[in-house]
Amino acid sequence: MKPSAIREILKAPNDPDLISLAAGNPSPETFPAQEMAEIAAGIFSRNYAAALQYGVTEGYEPLRVRTARRLSGKYALGREFDQLIITSGAQQAIELSAKVLTNEGDVVLCEDPSFIGALGALRSYNVRLAGVPSRDDGSGMDMDALEAALKTTPNVKLIYTIPTYQNPTGSVMPEASRKRLLELAKQYDVMILEDNPYFELRYDGEYIPPVKALDTEGRVIYAGSFSKIIAPGIRLGFALGPEPVTQKMVVGKQVSDVHSNLFFQILCDRYLEQYDIDGHIEKCNALYKLRRDTMVESLQRHLSDKLRWRVPHGGFFLWCERLDNGDGAEFSAAAKAHKVMTVPGAAFLVDDTQKSPGVRLNFSLPNPAQIEEGVRRIAAAVERI
Amino acid sequence: MKPSAIREILKAPNDPDLISLAAGNPSPETFPAQEMAEIAAGIFSRNYAAALQYGVTEGYEPLRVRTARRLSGKYALGREFDQLIITSGAQQAIELSAKVLTNEGDVVLCEDPSFIGALGALRSYNVRLAGVPSRDDGSGMDMDALEAALKTTPNVKLIYTIPTYQNPTGSVMPEASRKRLLELAKQYDVMILEDNPYFELRYDGEYIPPVKALDTEGRVIYAGSFSKIIAPGIRLGFALGPEPVTQKMVVGKQVSDVHSNLFFQILCDRYLEQYDIDGHIEKCNALYKLRRDTMVESLQRHLSDKLRWRVPHGGFFLWCERLDNGDGAEFSAAAKAHKVMTVPGAAFLVDDTQKSPGVRLNFSLPNPAQIEEGVRRIAAAVERI
Repeated sequence: MKPSAIREILKAPNDPDLISLAAGNPSPETFPAQEMAEIAAGIFSRNYAAALQYGVTEGYEPLRVRTARRLSGKYALGREFDQLIITSGAQQAIELSAKVLTNEGDVVLCEDPSFIGALGALRSYNVRLAGVPSRDDGSGMDMDALEAALKTTPNVKLIYTIPTYQNPTGSVMPEASRKRLLELAKQYDVMILEDNPYFELRYDGEYIPPVKALDTEGRVIYAGSFSKIIAPGIRLGFALGPEPVTQKMVVGKQVSDVHSNLFFQILCDRYLEQYDIDGHIEKCNALYKLRRDTMVESLQRHLSDKLRWRVPHGGFFLWCERLDNGDGAEFSAAAKAHKVMTVPGAAFLVDDTQKSPGVRLNFSLPNPAQIEEGVRRIAAAVERI
Repeated sequence: MKPSAIREILKAPNDPDLISLAAGNPSPETFPAQEMAEIAAGIFSRNYAAALQYGVTEGYEPLRVRTARRLSGKYALGREFDQLIITSGAQQAIELSAKVLTNEGDVVLCEDPSFIGALGALRSYNVRLAGVPSRDDGSGMDMDALEAALKTTPNVKLIYTIPTYQNPTGSVMPEASRKRLLELAKQYDVMILEDNPYFELRYDGEYIPPVKALDTEGRVIYAGSFSKIIAPGIRLGFALGPEPVTQKMVVGKQVSDVHSNLFFQILCDRYLEQYDIDGHIEKCNALYKLRRDTMVESLQRHLSDKLRWRVPHGGFFLWCERLDNGDGAEFSAAAKAHKVMTVPGAAFLVDDTQKSPGVRLNFSLPNPAQIEEGVRRIAAAVERI
């Protein structure tokens, strides 16, 4: 195990002049703090004895039921064989999936580049990660390449994918690919771990159902999160998957943290009960769309001679690559010298000793003025590269 | 991995007439809910943007510093080579210790019986648990037996111990044994994981310093908890150990849950800053001492012809054994038929397919009337055993 590149970057000096386009944080402007404060006061005055006491590992039952119903009703996620458990963020859903679905030496196929936190969780169980190439058209994992990998690689147990607004590339897997992914998983008898924290943060482009919505046989573990639509500091997410798998995850979770913070599980449940989460998400999306548009316009204005990118339809990240296919890390270093933090693409590679022409830019946390200034500074920084 | 016996017991029917002496819960009467509510309101109105955002994996810096200073100043815990990190309960401190200190097939020595949650965490990393016999005088792990085990067992990496108010036996390791434990660990070059969630819950008996207080060379990982002195539902504890070890634990924690609930880390810090935690613990102890005394008196009155026990000087549990050395599970089953939940001693054994004459009774959660009635019912239930 080793510390992640992002983690070290986020430890950068606390300089007020620094602009970070490196984080993966939601904007605090989206946190429904006033509503949460009111709910919290009610819990403290009327339900503190239960909310501050030990709870069950599976999670607070009303939150589990309410979340499962919302996912099922709105997105056709989850069938009779599935069970939803509350986890300490989607990160824990991923880690527990790795724990119960893989053994040392097994192979996990994944997009390359992919989410560092998931790669780290998988690596911590000594599995071998094998990257599947992505298509150049922004449609994510190449299904022909996946089929070839499944055909030639022994001991594949799991396919890890972020099909919608992938981190770091922003790619979206088309519905036809999702269907083929499921067919291939069935044919080669491997499980799929679908990491889907961003899908409701859609700014344009058509809605494509999660892979889990197509899962008729219990082949998909779905990792979801409240971090991006409510708040991340409360560390609440969930896993939705076939009950024999989630029950093993519960046993793993029990010895890991017993249960997730119960007070905020109750708070979250009441928020979903008393407020309009869909309306809240629409407001978040308006804010994030403006930031994404600002970033795209700034890049167009200042960096179109150096970088190529595809406009992401949702999520938190814009992935750009050097037109000269040089090292993205060189861009990130130059930007850092001008007090703009970015994440070099190599940090997301399965083999992060390789080079990548990519740089990941975050547009969810900085405000539009910071985004414009950040991109302007990067352009000045890389002028001679 | 398999579900724990306690977990299944705690899922018992929600019958209002049921008396549970099976839990390991603090009394909700001890939760400083009013103080927490006031602090929470302040965080929501003035610091929500930081408190609800992602935080660093090591934990909220002011809480880390304040906790380390309190432990150091009051209990001489922690030296210059040590680092304190916040974990999602002491359970996570134990789990992360297992993760970073053991490899598959390594041996961990522990008290037998011992805390189920810790045994489960260790088992989940496929280590081999080897129980060290305890002394009959309530002084915990037998140091001669430990030395013999260290001498004859290959691949021992870790000694797991709850030296103070052990769970389930309530035993307390004398200071001389603690010193010898450290010497043996040094001699055989193994680490010690000291699980110490109860030590401040002292009702009588002399104060004995934690093993960690004697650790001059960084051989002890100390797992501590806010669960028993503030509240368990917030899932906050800590690990204090040599920095190279805690840094690896941080890498493991990062891919497990990123960080613990930040809002309650801040809340906990302010509670420690603004209120008198030592005075609060004194009040908890007055409440728990009364409950312990009630249980001891009830047992004396109703069950002294069937059971033997040693009065615990602190903690949450009273361990009793059948005078006829019959199976404790038979007592627990009979008690359950009379609607009193207890935990049969075998549940705590390293090899839980063995029998134990013991039964663990909890006195922290039930009130004195429930304790009296519970013991009375057990006596009626086991009359013909």
